[in-house]
Amino acid sequence: MPASEPSPKPTDTTYTTHSGEALQKLLYPRSIAILGASDNPTKLSGRPVEYLKRFGFAGRILPVNPTRETVQGLPAHRSLDDVDVDIDLAMIMLSAERTADAVRACGRRGIPAAIVGASGFAELGDEGAALQRDLRAAIEESGVRVLGPNCLGMIGVRDRAMPTFSSALDEDVPLHEGPVAFLSQSGAFGGFVFNESQNLGIGISHYLNTGNEVDLSVAELLDGLVRTDQTQVVLAYLEGVTGGRRLLAAAREAHERDKPIIAVKVGRSAAGARAAQSHTASLAGEDAVFDGAARQYGILRVDGPEEMLDAAQLFATGRRVRGRGLTSLSVSGGAGALMADSGAQYGLEVRAWDETWQRKMAAAIPAYGSPRNPVDLTGTLLAEPDILRRALRVAVEHPGTDMIAVLLGCADSCATELIDAVEEAHRSTDRPVVVVWTGGSGRPRQRLRDLGIPCYTGPGSAAAALGLLADFSLRPPLPRPQRPDGIDDTAARSVLSAARAAGRRQLDEYESTRLIAAYGIPCAASRPVESAEAAVTAAAELGGPVAVKLLSDRIGHKSDIGGVRLGLGGADADADADAVREAADAVREAADDLFRIAREAGVDDARLLVQRMAEAGTELIVGIKRDPVFGPVVVVGLGGVLVEALADSRVAVAPVDTGTARRLVLSLRGSRLLGAVRGKPPRDVDAAAETIARLSWLAADLSEDIAELDVNPLLLAAEGRGAVAVDALAVLTGPTETE
Amino acid sequence: MPASEPSPKPTDTTYTTHSGEALQKLLYPRSIAILGASDNPTKLSGRPVEYLKRFGFAGRILPVNPTRETVQGLPAHRSLDDVDVDIDLAMIMLSAERTADAVRACGRRGIPAAIVGASGFAELGDEGAALQRDLRAAIEESGVRVLGPNCLGMIGVRDRAMPTFSSALDEDVPLHEGPVAFLSQSGAFGGFVFNESQNLGIGISHYLNTGNEVDLSVAELLDGLVRTDQTQVVLAYLEGVTGGRRLLAAAREAHERDKPIIAVKVGRSAAGARAAQSHTASLAGEDAVFDGAARQYGILRVDGPEEMLDAAQLFATGRRVRGRGLTSLSVSGGAGALMADSGAQYGLEVRAWDETWQRKMAAAIPAYGSPRNPVDLTGTLLAEPDILRRALRVAVEHPGTDMIAVLLGCADSCATELIDAVEEAHRSTDRPVVVVWTGGSGRPRQRLRDLGIPCYTGPGSAAAALGLLADFSLRPPLPRPQRPDGIDDTAARSVLSAARAAGRRQLDEYESTRLIAAYGIPCAASRPVESAEAAVTAAAELGGPVAVKLLSDRIGHKSDIGGVRLGLGGADADADADAVREAADAVREAADDLFRIAREAGVDDARLLVQRMAEAGTELIVGIKRDPVFGPVVVVGLGGVLVEALADSRVAVAPVDTGTARRLVLSLRGSRLLGAVRGKPPRDVDAAAETIARLSWLAADLSEDIAELDVNPLLLAAEGRGAVAVDALAVLTGPTETE
Repeated sequence: MPASEPSPKPTDTTYTTHSGEALQKLLYPRSIAILGASDNPTKLSGRPVEYLKRFGFAGRILPVNPTRETVQGLPAHRSLDDVDVDIDLAMIMLSAERTADAVRACGRRGIPAAIVGASGFAELGDEGAALQRDLRAAIEESGVRVLGPNCLGMIGVRDRAMPTFSSALDEDVPLHEGPVAFLSQSGAFGGFVFNESQNLGIGISHYLNTGNEVDLSVAELLDGLVRTDQTQVVLAYLEGVTGGRRLLAAAREAHERDKPIIAVKVGRSAAGARAAQSHTASLAGEDAVFDGAARQYGILRVDGPEEMLDAAQLFATGRRVRGRGLTSLSVSGGAGALMADSGAQYGLEVRAWDETWQRKMAAAIPAYGSPRNPVDLTGTLLAEPDILRRALRVAVEHPGTDMIAVLLGCADSCATELIDAVEEAHRSTDRPVVVVWTGGSGRPRQRLRDLGIPCYTGPGSAAAALGLLADFSLRPPLPRPQRPDGIDDTAARSVLSAARAAGRRQLDEYESTRLIAAYGIPCAASRPVESAEAAVTAAAELGGPVAVKLLSDRIGHKSDIGGVRLGLGGADADADADAVREAADAVREAADDLFRIAREAGVDDARLLVQRMAEAGTELIVGIKRDPVFGPVVVVGLGGVLVEALADSRVAVAPVDTGTARRLVLSLRGSRLLGAVRGKPPRDVDAAAETIARLSWLAADLSEDIAELDVNPLLLAAEGRGAVAVDALAVLTGPTETE
Repeated sequence: MPASEPSPKPTDTTYTTHSGEALQKLLYPRSIAILGASDNPTKLSGRPVEYLKRFGFAGRILPVNPTRETVQGLPAHRSLDDVDVDIDLAMIMLSAERTADAVRACGRRGIPAAIVGASGFAELGDEGAALQRDLRAAIEESGVRVLGPNCLGMIGVRDRAMPTFSSALDEDVPLHEGPVAFLSQSGAFGGFVFNESQNLGIGISHYLNTGNEVDLSVAELLDGLVRTDQTQVVLAYLEGVTGGRRLLAAAREAHERDKPIIAVKVGRSAAGARAAQSHTASLAGEDAVFDGAARQYGILRVDGPEEMLDAAQLFATGRRVRGRGLTSLSVSGGAGALMADSGAQYGLEVRAWDETWQRKMAAAIPAYGSPRNPVDLTGTLLAEPDILRRALRVAVEHPGTDMIAVLLGCADSCATELIDAVEEAHRSTDRPVVVVWTGGSGRPRQRLRDLGIPCYTGPGSAAAALGLLADFSLRPPLPRPQRPDGIDDTAARSVLSAARAAGRRQLDEYESTRLIAAYGIPCAASRPVESAEAAVTAAAELGGPVAVKLLSDRIGHKSDIGGVRLGLGGADADADADAVREAADAVREAADDLFRIAREAGVDDARLLVQRMAEAGTELIVGIKRDPVFGPVVVVGLGGVLVEALADSRVAVAPVDTGTARRLVLSLRGSRLLGAVRGKPPRDVDAAAETIARLSWLAADLSEDIAELDVNPLLLAAEGRGAVAVDALAVLTGPTETE
């Protein structure tokens, strides 16, 4: 068994930790051959040459076209063999039918990477799927790493390496180079968002559209990008992730290199998931699982492109915060109040300053301003822009300033002085300084962004971006879960083998309990019995009050048919004979009753489970299941009434350490109930975390066998008094699920 | 007693239903006198004349300045008496000290309305407060209606009536006239937002900054605006509302005239409330109360100026929806999926079309597009823009299309054809058509807005605006609550008088119960007793199991000191003598115990309440209290564990009808628990609604006497089985609260 994370599961077989040389050549090519390059710069197959020329690609542009002497004024090559220099990257603009052979030719020529623009592959049904299989075979034979097919290509902004036919380059928008890479599973929409990013002056390193991902996936590209020095931030627009574990490995790489991933993922709603699925023909997986995995691995998920670009502006500065303290300086008291509201919404704290600091600020601003935080600089600022400079100096100096927001508006006329003051402050500190500039011509916003200072139109978008930056800066380290002690593999596997041998997929409660007990999860003591008399004996041996339950793998929801009796027996050791007899009678009666119920339900071979009643506690539901994208996951929810009221649950990818498990529990919306409420002491959250972690290892170790398993309820006693599983139900994988 | 809504409370004394002539003159002046007008157009006191001249005010501009012959080239008047034409409006640009006399002079001259620009009033402490009192006296003497003081004035866009010194008019932004009025309690920030609205091409009727609201309040201005034909939509930026009832009366007027109010209100967070309060020196009131009142009266509250202006673009079209069905047409499958996600977030439904309609759409779009909803028009659209025209015709024709979103991007080059297609569709239907245009130069967005077609940069902001429009279009009618039958005023008031006579402010449980029972609220039957023997007798008379509780107005939280005993007595009528005796003993023991506890708590004159145990049910907490801004309000929450876990409660302004009360209960986050859950039948929500409505009338009728009253719990039985109040506690107003 593995000592730390489990070995890769079937979904993960091809992941390699280093994407290697080929990816480097793709991202930073010094020579690009364009196969099927057209002389017509407006045709799709003419555009790559056109863009490379127009934007001044620094390397060699090598059109390959057997029918022409020149392409768009450049000498054309009859074939790849005619090219007499090293080729780093081939852009294949041939039909789907001719693409596989072209990849093979690239391989023979020693070209490490290629981009396939043609569509007509798996996205177009059976015939296309056959072509895609052929393409995959060609990739495996040739060793060429391929982006696409059905993709618009790449834009490498620094080198003007633009093997692409995306019309995003035809707009009237200047290019901005910088540390932000953008991966998009959508071609058209990716182009729009790339273009919008340039409108906002966001410095981009690369934009890549991944297409059908027959070879290079979003995950591998992401991993490759975060390993380059140039890329410090990755934006991702995702429609359907395959190979979730690879994505998480890349996210771990990014996390450890302190490089944020800001992702939009469609499929939050049923309608969105349906649309994404019909669009990409890929399995979306369950949104809650993606969401949980993203949280767990520090991927910053945002709702849409606007939020993504708002955040990108800020993250592009490379700055981090050390706390959540926001200092807000505003030309308008109203805007300052609104910033405080928006900040609170995103977890920022606008703390009022103490008197010493208020005095310092008061010296910098007009007498009728407000020197507390938020600071009201007053409209006099527009006549005397130096107020801003003075106030910013105090703000930067204040030890509670983790970040600064400056709220301005209109003021086209004195914009230069105000911007100078902000720039001085921005240069004087390593903490984030952002501007909210509402109204006016828009030119001051543009100017600030050109200076690398994030600028927004309203407080809400600024606060959202700052909140994400705080979340990322203050994220906990990403643990590498260690396998807990005290796991009895043999016992666990023997439960599974016995059920498999009997041809069963559903384990009964006793088997399920033994399975989780083998992973060190405390379970209420219990005995399976086959007769009412045995039940009486078992109850006496267990001691204290007991529950008696129907035990059959053919009865799933036993409580729905009255198959659970609670609080029977339990005569004290020093009870008189009458009491003992009464207790035994109660158990016997219940047992007879349950056997009758089983027979009426058509189950003649039912047994009973006699179980010691657990101390009352707060109910959790803890389960594991297999996600088609991410593999084994663990699900935690508050039990009882809350699960009905709120669908309040959280997901994490298995395995998890106890720290992650603890955060999972505490992030439940109803987690306040686990504190001291209604006169009860706080619950033993550590014990819950331990159980969740152990269950997550069970999920990881046995994911080929276990389709799902629920512990419901896990009773959480008071702090220090542990947790105990009172019921459990496991379902094994069927033939198709183990494929 | 009133037959419908209660008569105005102290906070509402000055509300008049018609703001009259003066407001009309303020909004549409044909002549404006500027008192203290400076010859220098860059000085604050020079700007009003400058703006009126620069933008071409159609009426008379009448500078009043005793020291000059001309002001900015216009003949100056020595005093108001020297002006020989009717003056509709005076803009007073004099110092705070001279302002009151100027208002008196306006009164003598018969000027109906004035704007006071000077600051230095109540916002500046005691001295200013004295000046503000003097100003108020001048207003009352003169009958002049005054906007301000401490305000930047007004911009009337249609008539270019700009008695203002807001620098928002100095920016490089063209003005757009239209149906949207904007009221702001912040001068500077209001100016920024006004300016930004012009950037977005939103047609504005008036922008007004209200300042200290010594006379004209936001509420009265709002009421006046919605009564004009020109204003169809009102935007409001609010910091501290005073006279909440007046605001709601204006909201009712707007609601009934189908004119939406879209409001930003600061103070959602503690820091925001603090900042707003220190900024405006006005009482913010509790945010949850404003929020509840806004929901109740159909005010659309949004988070910030960006959301407000996004919504204003759409509402400015005057269009409404008949349902929540969103038809989405996109050049990119990815954008379509994202639009579906965003739509779902805001309550819109992107429903897949049936085959008949898919065939119709398929005939309009490329074969590899998707004809379901969301419709994927494919990138071919950019080469063949007519696809959009054809697809929009089908979309408009579809009976499930309540609104249309068209998602485009970049495409500067073929923008004209695409915009023409959208405009044709927009003209062909009365349903909303919006465009999301991501990337590109921004010129297409500008062009669409110039055509009156709302346009956004991302799907999220479009969906938020469409969601608000759906909420407003489909809002329920605003009820006029009718006083329920069966209210026994005399009984209620006698409870209050008795307590007042005894000098008490806290009612005990029995008194509180009698109070609510007088309002027809079903309470568990109970008897107050003074001895253990009397408790035994009472228990027997009440029949069934009883609770015995400490009864003293000096013990607030009786359960915290063990002052409640449940499930005592209750021997059946046919029980044997032993059982009857045992039951009586239990009541007696509990009673003795409770008297002892009371004595230990220092209460020697405690009584007990013997109360028949109610049928188990789901717990609600229903309370009333007095809000400083909105007066009596009713608060509803789920009781038990949920109130601890979620702080799950809703507020409405009293009185409410049962329909509103029902919606209040069903809008609780945990309201799912009131349906059929865990094998229990659904709860009697109608009975809860009836109780809440009655309690709200109690709040409205007796608001001068009752500071707060909680019914906790109100036990909600199964549908048709009613609700019963099991405990209640009322606190009367103190001397300061009745002022």
